[in-house]
Amino acid sequence: MLPKKMKALVKARSGRGAELAVVDVPRPGPRDALIRVRACSVCGTDYHIYAWDPWAASRVRPPLVFGHEFCGEVVAVGEAVRSVAVGDTVSAETHVACGRCSLCRTGQAHICQEVAILGVDRPGSFAQYVSLPEENAWKNPPGVAPEIASVQEPLGNAVHTVLSGEVAGRTVAVLGCGPIGLFAVGVARAAGAAAVYATDISPYRLALAPRMGADRALDASRADVVAELRSLTGGEGPDVVLEMSGSPAAVSQALKAVRFGGRVSILGIPSRPVEIDLAQDVVFKGITIQGITGRRMFETWYQTRALLSSGRLDISPVITHRLPMEEFELAMELVGSGQCGKVILYPSPTEV
Amino acid sequence: MLPKKMKALVKARSGRGAELAVVDVPRPGPRDALIRVRACSVCGTDYHIYAWDPWAASRVRPPLVFGHEFCGEVVAVGEAVRSVAVGDTVSAETHVACGRCSLCRTGQAHICQEVAILGVDRPGSFAQYVSLPEENAWKNPPGVAPEIASVQEPLGNAVHTVLSGEVAGRTVAVLGCGPIGLFAVGVARAAGAAAVYATDISPYRLALAPRMGADRALDASRADVVAELRSLTGGEGPDVVLEMSGSPAAVSQALKAVRFGGRVSILGIPSRPVEIDLAQDVVFKGITIQGITGRRMFETWYQTRALLSSGRLDISPVITHRLPMEEFELAMELVGSGQCGKVILYPSPTEV
Amino acid sequence: MLPKKMKALVKARSGRGAELAVVDVPRPGPRDALIRVRACSVCGTDYHIYAWDPWAASRVRPPLVFGHEFCGEVVAVGEAVRSVAVGDTVSAETHVACGRCSLCRTGQAHICQEVAILGVDRPGSFAQYVSLPEENAWKNPPGVAPEIASVQEPLGNAVHTVLSGEVAGRTVAVLGCGPIGLFAVGVARAAGAAAVYATDISPYRLALAPRMGADRALDASRADVVAELRSLTGGEGPDVVLEMSGSPAAVSQALKAVRFGGRVSILGIPSRPVEIDLAQDVVFKGITIQGITGRRMFETWYQTRALLSSGRLDISPVITHRLPMEEFELAMELVGSGQCGKVILYPSPTEV
Amino acid sequence: MLPKKMKALVKARSGRGAELAVVDVPRPGPRDALIRVRACSVCGTDYHIYAWDPWAASRVRPPLVFGHEFCGEVVAVGEAVRSVAVGDTVSAETHVACGRCSLCRTGQAHICQEVAILGVDRPGSFAQYVSLPEENAWKNPPGVAPEIASVQEPLGNAVHTVLSGEVAGRTVAVLGCGPIGLFAVGVARAAGAAAVYATDISPYRLALAPRMGADRALDASRADVVAELRSLTGGEGPDVVLEMSGSPAAVSQALKAVRFGGRVSILGIPSRPVEIDLAQDVVFKGITIQGITGRRMFETWYQTRALLSSGRLDISPVITHRLPMEEFELAMELVGSGQCGKVILYPSPTEV
Repeated sequence: MLPKKMKALVKARSGRGAELAVVDVPRPGPRDALIRVRACSVCGTDYHIYAWDPWAASRVRPPLVFGHEFCGEVVAVGEAVRSVAVGDTVSAETHVACGRCSLCRTGQAHICQEVAILGVDRPGSFAQYVSLPEENAWKNPPGVAPEIASVQEPLGNAVHTVLSGEVAGRTVAVLGCGPIGLFAVGVARAAGAAAVYATDISPYRLALAPRMGADRALDASRADVVAELRSLTGGEGPDVVLEMSGSPAAVSQALKAVRFGGRVSILGIPSRPVEIDLAQDVVFKGITIQGITGRRMFETWYQTRALLSSGRLDISPVITHRLPMEEFELAMELVGSGQCGKVILYPSPTEV
Repeated sequence: MLPKKMKALVKARSGRGAELAVVDVPRPGPRDALIRVRACSVCGTDYHIYAWDPWAASRVRPPLVFGHEFCGEVVAVGEAVRSVAVGDTVSAETHVACGRCSLCRTGQAHICQEVAILGVDRPGSFAQYVSLPEENAWKNPPGVAPEIASVQEPLGNAVHTVLSGEVAGRTVAVLGCGPIGLFAVGVARAAGAAAVYATDISPYRLALAPRMGADRALDASRADVVAELRSLTGGEGPDVVLEMSGSPAAVSQALKAVRFGGRVSILGIPSRPVEIDLAQDVVFKGITIQGITGRRMFETWYQTRALLSSGRLDISPVITHRLPMEEFELAMELVGSGQCGKVILYPSPTEV
Repeated sequence: MLPKKMKALVKARSGRGAELAVVDVPRPGPRDALIRVRACSVCGTDYHIYAWDPWAASRVRPPLVFGHEFCGEVVAVGEAVRSVAVGDTVSAETHVACGRCSLCRTGQAHICQEVAILGVDRPGSFAQYVSLPEENAWKNPPGVAPEIASVQEPLGNAVHTVLSGEVAGRTVAVLGCGPIGLFAVGVARAAGAAAVYATDISPYRLALAPRMGADRALDASRADVVAELRSLTGGEGPDVVLEMSGSPAAVSQALKAVRFGGRVSILGIPSRPVEIDLAQDVVFKGITIQGITGRRMFETWYQTRALLSSGRLDISPVITHRLPMEEFELAMELVGSGQCGKVILYPSPTEV
Repeated sequence: MLPKKMKALVKARSGRGAELAVVDVPRPGPRDALIRVRACSVCGTDYHIYAWDPWAASRVRPPLVFGHEFCGEVVAVGEAVRSVAVGDTVSAETHVACGRCSLCRTGQAHICQEVAILGVDRPGSFAQYVSLPEENAWKNPPGVAPEIASVQEPLGNAVHTVLSGEVAGRTVAVLGCGPIGLFAVGVARAAGAAAVYATDISPYRLALAPRMGADRALDASRADVVAELRSLTGGEGPDVVLEMSGSPAAVSQALKAVRFGGRVSILGIPSRPVEIDLAQDVVFKGITIQGITGRRMFETWYQTRALLSSGRLDISPVITHRLPMEEFELAMELVGSGQCGKVILYPSPTEV
């Protein structure tokens, strides 16, 4: 018998903060799976909701169980569900796309404009249970650690970014060593990049980059990033630059550092418009800029699983903190401070 | 016997203007062809040199014979030349690339950083004769009109831009109806675009767009370009937007109008940095931005020739003015005013 | 009120033939649409079922309403249907893919191995009514003629084949002028092919090729196809060869005629293994061979609709015969003889 | 002062064998470099010339210095040479392409039909000195071992084959563990393949495959290769199959084993036509077949250098034998027997 009540982390009202509360266990619809959460991981987005920044205030409608990265066990399925079964261990593609628009019907569901995001637009996974459409449940092979399974979602962002162009034998710069940037370092390295250079301004995060395979970690608060990247690449600039920081300065560095004809893939989200010298940095250089969001459904998930299960990619250095869900305030503080890689929360397995 | 002297249009000194002068006929080196010019066409770059704008002042070293788009007949070749012969009718790939850098050796000679451009960095083709490395001489099939052959160079810019991604069955917007924009309209139409929308602020040029195959020409000085393009495409925005105006406003329109997941290819050269809302217009939309310059050597030339000689593409509406080279001042005035498509100059065939 | 009974063309038993019978109107499931058929078109596959060739004998389980290409009006929908509504005019993507395998989840549903094909593996559309999962119902814009809407399915095969690589400014040969080959001629022409060459052995079909835009139609029973194609392309061979005949001889011609580095896309289905000189015709030439089946879901459908509704592509010359469904035997005879383009059958709109 | 005479391995006449002889040192033309050979490696092609198989008899015109894979030091350059200098350590792109045909001018020089191959069509590198057009001389960074530098040419074949499509996170099968197959195993592994499976019939070569990174080596003389590859990939078949054996049986295995929608790249050269079930193995599966020859000039060389110099790829296990050039008969015997990886020959550095 499934319990009626569960513990969950609730954004109860506008303003900073959240609270651990007892709420109803969600009822899965006919095409949904109900999942008991084993581990969930904290995303920057979760911190924005916790801290209630302008984006969160404009998008989120409290009260809401938030959180979206997780791994858990299917405990019930709706009557029309055919692709997952009770007992399966699943992670979540957190973008619930509409499935009917032209983007969804042409392999671009990751940019569906009718998307509902778990823990943002619908109840999330900082909870003992979460309900999810079966299409969004990603079955894991046996033996994957719950925290590794949980972070496949942001890892997928990195896989999507890195593998959106050629990498093998290319020089790659990753600007920004938050968890997704660190994952990208590892993915680029696993995919045969000839060299991977990483930048950040946090000593804590710069120290993690070599552990993920960076050949060189540059402190962007001190180094002349453009000059250094050119120098490291024989004066030409990296073949590929991945912007993962959201810093306007890094965007400019990306465009100026990349070699003529190179690729700049941007996953970082600048909080304000950025001034770009299109003539010198884009047109005459003949570069390609890609905006990257989400994960390709489900190409990226297959690639991610393959890289993990083959052992080509080890992401464990990025998982720096493991806490019971009760210590969510410490978790949010850590994420806000940048003194962490990925922070994992574990809901209590049984007790409500 | 080749003459020793010729008439040529010379940028004699800093400041606005140019003069028709008698100068030495160039002497071809061992790998060069000497070509008698039949027709040459005026590019915006030529007008910048004539008008001596800041770019020209920083790059061009007078005295210089300028001009680079032309067609002519080979009248002499250096001893090591093997691919062209006296009597061939040729046009010019005007970018003389180094041939030795990593870009040249990997199919990216169009962005070679050691490039010397005809009529900018070396003597040009507003003249009775011009010398050109054999690699840069493009042999034309018999029967091509000299003015059509001449404008293959800017037409190639349009072909390069349009065919840098999928076009068949796609909706395409071309922002800016200068000659290259107008060519792009024709190329997109020939390549099976489902619809081609063109914008400009000049009534003269907007009137030419439908003659090149535009389904709709929008006056950007009056219309809400983004709203109109969305409305014309069922609310989604064009699949492909080609920025050919260099206007910062048009860059913004391109990014806002293109559909989610679409392509924006930028050939226009803004004269100052442009502010871009990367988060909303690039990252979340998952679009691709391409900087485009020059022509792919020589992929673009083969495509251009095929489109012309098959009759799929008729560029004659863009050629609006034909003048003897002596009337170069009128030609420059026309180009400066925007009251023209492509202006052709004909040097005197014999008299010096 | 929907009728209980309808007229349908039934493959009642093994062996040649079929019969027009009164059968139950299908009952749509919760995710299905019930469609009143306005027009259906005859595919070679339908003839194989009618004639009961070895493939049909091994795959089809009588009794079965066959036929799969059609257009009609939605008259009822299951309770879970959200993307189509009563009154919509729809065509069918006839491959009912599983939606759950790795191919379906990575944009390759057209090669799903669990596919059920309409009129082959499940009741088809040679009938007054047919039931279809909503995902497979393709809504048509207003004003499309039913027979044009019906043949979008095989037209989609052609679009998929032609647009699986570059076409604009390229020379294209289409081997085999059955309906899909003729469609391919038109699509290649619309997509800016510099020249389109078509081959067949049927004078009837060769006569249709120029009407679809072929620059040249070659009688493969008389001409040396390889030599002619090379001669027409300056000795190099076509850039792209589309094999649409299923003839082993044509496969060999395709590989020998295509230029070095070219593309051979094969949609035709040879009835026996084919001997290929891999060393000379594939490896040393550095060519690419693509096996093509079905339509990309639903990329191809969007492209097909765009080409049709923009007026870039006119397929009406291919539709050569229009018959009431009662004259199905004449229709099958025509298809078997090759003395036709596409044959359309019209079920009686009301009477059972 | 350069010597006038040198020792070289000469194919003196028709029939099996070769001889070490004293011949004139080649005289470089104005665009050539003369190179003192430090190490040369033996290719299967060299063995074909030595053994005088039908291909050799039809192509090679004795007397000829053969051999084409090498590394050496530039000792003289022609007057027009600008890209290499005396003292440079170079390897050779052994295909001397014409530079003027449409293939050469569109980035496809590796399939130029006017190619002259070093040691096949012009004097080769089993010698103390060899002359080479400067375009074909590839400068090595300092510190590369001569034998590693020499085998970059066949390694380039492997890089070209492996990187002609996506590899990261994909399963890859390499059929045939000759030196290029073994290199391909290493390149696929370095490029992030999720798993690499190798097949051969020689226990000697199968033993080398795991040392290059193969996850599994299958003896094709005993195993059911298709069944095993499917079983190793969850029933689906590898994403990518690289045919490097030239065996007709392996071609069939490649097509049958590859997953639906997968890639088969063929570098191996079957000595006779191969029967292919196009319908079942190519068309319905929707696969892509690529013919691969040579190396992309010079994209492949940059990738090869990057993989080697970054340390991502270690090819030393493939180099199994090192012999003075005088022991060429032993070298040829080894290559003929298949009881070797790559065999290196060292010409005497000084003595003639």
